[in-house]
Amino acid sequence: MGLCQTTHVGPEGPTYKDGLYLDKDRTMPHLVILYTGQLDAEMNMTTLCRQMADAMLTVKDEEGKQVFPTGGTRVLAYPAPHYAVADGGAAGQAAGLYDENPHGGSGDYAFVYLNVRMGRGRTEATQQRAGQTLVEVAKAFFAPVMAQRHIGITLQIDVGPEVFDAKHSNLHPLFQKGAV
Amino acid sequence: MGLCQTTHVGPEGPTYKDGLYLDKDRTMPHLVILYTGQLDAEMNMTTLCRQMADAMLTVKDEEGKQVFPTGGTRVLAYPAPHYAVADGGAAGQAAGLYDENPHGGSGDYAFVYLNVRMGRGRTEATQQRAGQTLVEVAKAFFAPVMAQRHIGITLQIDVGPEVFDAKHSNLHPLFQKGAV
Amino acid sequence: MGLCQTTHVGPEGPTYKDGLYLDKDRTMPHLVILYTGQLDAEMNMTTLCRQMADAMLTVKDEEGKQVFPTGGTRVLAYPAPHYAVADGGAAGQAAGLYDENPHGGSGDYAFVYLNVRMGRGRTEATQQRAGQTLVEVAKAFFAPVMAQRHIGITLQIDVGPEVFDAKHSNLHPLFQKGAV
Repeated sequence: MGLCQTTHVGPEGPTYKDGLYLDKDRTMPHLVILYTGQLDAEMNMTTLCRQMADAMLTVKDEEGKQVFPTGGTRVLAYPAPHYAVADGGAAGQAAGLYDENPHGGSGDYAFVYLNVRMGRGRTEATQQRAGQTLVEVAKAFFAPVMAQRHIGITLQIDVGPEVFDAKHSNLHPLFQKGAV
Repeated sequence: MGLCQTTHVGPEGPTYKDGLYLDKDRTMPHLVILYTGQLDAEMNMTTLCRQMADAMLTVKDEEGKQVFPTGGTRVLAYPAPHYAVADGGAAGQAAGLYDENPHGGSGDYAFVYLNVRMGRGRTEATQQRAGQTLVEVAKAFFAPVMAQRHIGITLQIDVGPEVFDAKHSNLHPLFQKGAV
Repeated sequence: MGLCQTTHVGPEGPTYKDGLYLDKDRTMPHLVILYTGQLDAEMNMTTLCRQMADAMLTVKDEEGKQVFPTGGTRVLAYPAPHYAVADGGAAGQAAGLYDENPHGGSGDYAFVYLNVRMGRGRTEATQQRAGQTLVEVAKAFFAPVMAQRHIGITLQIDVGPEVFDAKHSNLHPLFQKGAV
């Protein structure tokens, strides 16, 4: 098994190094989750990370191939210690829908932003399929929370504008069949 | 009042779901603030978040309409526990302008990056007006800090490159007149 | 020495303010490092930040001029408290390459994402030279870690899509020769 591989994708396309190759279209899937920090008291964000990573690994392209390579799939979640959402709580307090919620109540708004960065070269259909797959997992995960507080969830997929891209990893070889 | 709405904006434009609609041009305003963590000892970043959100809500387009929808406006601020700025302090120590500052002194540089992500479809004039409004609030907030330490503040507005955009929220209905 | 300068770069190009000027092509280099939080127990990320900033300052363009202005160079690193990488550990445990590692073992994957945002207007050669310079520093820094655990490192340089850009800083004047 190759212990390490480095791949450099410049404007000229991928470079082969260390005897291994990463297809340009299959590199660089990552998901960064930014959220209002009060949510850490109400849910396990590590669980969400795992569920989202698992969902990413299920996405297939038109030919039935896995879109996101296992060794390149990662999800990172960051609670924001400081935040402000919408009007700060006045409308929520006036509506009084979640006064029974022990975590903040009706005026305590939460927000979760899930941002996927995909490599270039996928079809629009694949991009949409990936998005729909991921958003359904997020909606299911947050359903209990959404039932008891004000929360906004946004998921966006970006195709990155990178002009330089270098990878150095000993993870990919774990998931490449035939790698020696 | 609708308790929840999901909006999906794909390449084909917005999708209507749950009987509610979000105008594509008015979605996705958020502000993420990244900053060197030593600043937490000198100011209240939650206050900055609130001031910036309030400023976002005041921005109007050419027709006098609110640019950023209240229920979609959010500001998240993240102190970096690890950082390096400029030359690391030598030039600041040599200049000795802030030796009296109890928070780090002349060689302790701070940096704040305010990054707004706006939806597509706004006019250049609206983008510039939003930027000027927000940068003035940031400058006023940081004026006392800038008087006693080295600090760099950058505010950028990006128009996002998203290829998939899904929202699921029970915040928007709080701020939509006529929503049932 | 000018204590402070504000520069606004809109679509029309840079604006001169406070008697100082920032070349549009030389503004806005920053590096944000996102990584799986378990790495904080194994390395000093503040050291990496400093090494990367120092490397950024060495990058020259075709004319031998410094590409990244000293006063505008900053590196921020954020450990993610919640994360998921690849298959979650099964393949690593099966391979059993790092069972002796006291920090997590063979099934504990790490990931580091280094994202540089450069200003527009640099040549492709300069972008590639900057990338190669930075990735070599990162690879050297992580070599001891990569020898004892599964880790993926990705470095990307983006050219930002900003439609508004304002800077307010008392750092730049420290590094500008001839500034009064």
